[in-house]
Amino acid sequence: MDNFTYCTPTKYIFGKDAEMQAGTELRRLSLNNVLVCYGQGSVIRSGLLQRVLSTLENEHIAHTELGGIEPNPTDPKVREGIGICRSKGIDGILAVGGGSAIDTAKAIAAGVPYDGDFWDFWAGKATVEKALPVGVVLTIPAAGSEGSGNSVITLLDGMHKISLRTDFALRPKFALMNPELTFTLPPAQTAAGIADMMAHIFERYFSPTADVEITDRVSEGVLTAIIEEAPKVMANPTDYEARANIMWSGTLAHNGICGTGRKEDWVSHFMEHELSAVYGVTHGAGLAVILPAWMTFMAHHSPCKGAQLSRRVFGVTGLEGNDTGAALEGISRLKTFFKSLGLPVTMEELGIKDPDIDLLVKKLHENKGDEIGGYYRLRSPQTTEIYNLAR
Amino acid sequence: MDNFTYCTPTKYIFGKDAEMQAGTELRRLSLNNVLVCYGQGSVIRSGLLQRVLSTLENEHIAHTELGGIEPNPTDPKVREGIGICRSKGIDGILAVGGGSAIDTAKAIAAGVPYDGDFWDFWAGKATVEKALPVGVVLTIPAAGSEGSGNSVITLLDGMHKISLRTDFALRPKFALMNPELTFTLPPAQTAAGIADMMAHIFERYFSPTADVEITDRVSEGVLTAIIEEAPKVMANPTDYEARANIMWSGTLAHNGICGTGRKEDWVSHFMEHELSAVYGVTHGAGLAVILPAWMTFMAHHSPCKGAQLSRRVFGVTGLEGNDTGAALEGISRLKTFFKSLGLPVTMEELGIKDPDIDLLVKKLHENKGDEIGGYYRLRSPQTTEIYNLAR
Repeated sequence: MDNFTYCTPTKYIFGKDAEMQAGTELRRLSLNNVLVCYGQGSVIRSGLLQRVLSTLENEHIAHTELGGIEPNPTDPKVREGIGICRSKGIDGILAVGGGSAIDTAKAIAAGVPYDGDFWDFWAGKATVEKALPVGVVLTIPAAGSEGSGNSVITLLDGMHKISLRTDFALRPKFALMNPELTFTLPPAQTAAGIADMMAHIFERYFSPTADVEITDRVSEGVLTAIIEEAPKVMANPTDYEARANIMWSGTLAHNGICGTGRKEDWVSHFMEHELSAVYGVTHGAGLAVILPAWMTFMAHHSPCKGAQLSRRVFGVTGLEGNDTGAALEGISRLKTFFKSLGLPVTMEELGIKDPDIDLLVKKLHENKGDEIGGYYRLRSPQTTEIYNLAR
Repeated sequence: MDNFTYCTPTKYIFGKDAEMQAGTELRRLSLNNVLVCYGQGSVIRSGLLQRVLSTLENEHIAHTELGGIEPNPTDPKVREGIGICRSKGIDGILAVGGGSAIDTAKAIAAGVPYDGDFWDFWAGKATVEKALPVGVVLTIPAAGSEGSGNSVITLLDGMHKISLRTDFALRPKFALMNPELTFTLPPAQTAAGIADMMAHIFERYFSPTADVEITDRVSEGVLTAIIEEAPKVMANPTDYEARANIMWSGTLAHNGICGTGRKEDWVSHFMEHELSAVYGVTHGAGLAVILPAWMTFMAHHSPCKGAQLSRRVFGVTGLEGNDTGAALEGISRLKTFFKSLGLPVTMEELGIKDPDIDLLVKKLHENKGDEIGGYYRLRSPQTTEIYNLAR
């Protein structure tokens, strides 16, 4: 087991009516003037935004709205938010939405007290030392950003989609999580979120670090729960219990508990980020395409962890001594599972008929370096092979 | 799933030499004058205390020692600590040890800023609103106190052993966890710690709340890891990887992650606390005796959760439709596991030849009320039956 430091100070308030605690939680943080970030209007149409804002008004907390944040959020909205915060003396940020709203809120929070350009953090030129406090009302269980210190932003100039990872600085102070808010998610968005949270576990599970049984077993437990609960939310979107299990699983998948004590991988995310940046696909759907391709490559080059996953999570038996065979059988079951949720498992099913794989590979290694991957090191010939496996 | 609030702000620094960060972590908290709590001298003999104190000296942090804390810690030592802190203007506490040192540190931390008697909190007469910050150098993986907001203290007058549970106030600010520090634990203490951490999961797993699949699966994962790693630490006390897995499992067993979203039980702990208070037995060894007895009662009155545990964790198969049978088979395997660690599974094996069960039952319900238990409600006839099952 590797040495590690782990701290998850986010206060999770989970359950019915959780969003109604926004005002009191902001007040507890002594915030008086907040920026409220949200997406493309569903939080207005559902009445959620108004309910949340009423709790701020009850606490006499001034607020400015920053709506219109798009999926795969980009730098102009971050710059707009930073400008508003500086001009209005904003002292905290409340994100109402999913990963895009939260990641934008975090980027603004990091940028406001920083003298240079906020992209310096994403470009690896600076480290986030301080940030405005961020709170979250979660509406989409997927990105896990409500419990992570991470933020993924795309720089429009060059379409660079980059994930910034911080240990503490950008972890939300609180996350208000009401499973009922997810009842109205479209099936495709629910399914993409499930693929995203599973990917967050796979990226940590496929690790070169040996002897981390406790972290493996916790990871396998979260995966098993997701696989059991996912069909229920697809069949009955208003199944509170199943929605609650999926929502909390999405947080545990990405708040770090599935990664303690080991090196992580993250190649599938890197490869998907190029798909999203170039073709504008939904992140979770892109992951459902990339993950099986990446795992197939691994089944032939380093099958051990895939075989363990197959045997412990996908119930593969009878292939003792044949790790590649066991890993491939698990991948087949994973694809069947993704398809049962209505997810694509090939680029063609994702709507990319003739992918420009040379471009994807070029951008991937430009953004992430010549050699990538924690579980197994990959250079452009290998990443080309994986993109081709995903066609 | 029940509504819940969950926040674990403790910063875990895990791995080799972790204890050497005591000074810098205390400095990060702006502490200048700390009380250092420890037990009966093993930390002196091993040289650990001197190593830790040297890191305080490097940071010019003044310190006063409070040694001699006994297993099943009692109120006089807490009162002594409170007195020292007040007279010396102590601003924080560092516990170096296991649950007894940590729980005493927490009790002192709660008592110092409180006007009344510290026992008011344990007696349910007051709520901990503020406390001195507590840091931990962990030497015994067992109680889970390094990551919990709980503290168990015995009031000598009447031998009332009571657990105080706080959400946030008494959670340590940091926990330094070096698995190497556990290499020298005697086998009986290692084994008792393993029983204790398993009990912390069972107390949460046996819940009347339905549909908490994610929390069940995480709990089963931690239990499975413990069962796999325990034989390794017993066979080879200096197996770093196995010690690391057990140490982190002990934290996850009790920092709340195995309890989110559901009502918990805690009867086995309550019943064991009376055994410890009356007969002075080691807490973990007492739990190894009480747990199978409690589970046996449940197998006959509410077998569902025990049957699930048997099937998912102990690999019991072939008893479909027979939950009582499956639960009993799992209990048999649990007893075999405890015995394989050298633990007692009856009061007689624990050295209590002729238990005064009437006294145990009387004190249990005096301390905890006429009706106890989250999973299944028990009054004195039932608790008498369980103590008798444990003879």
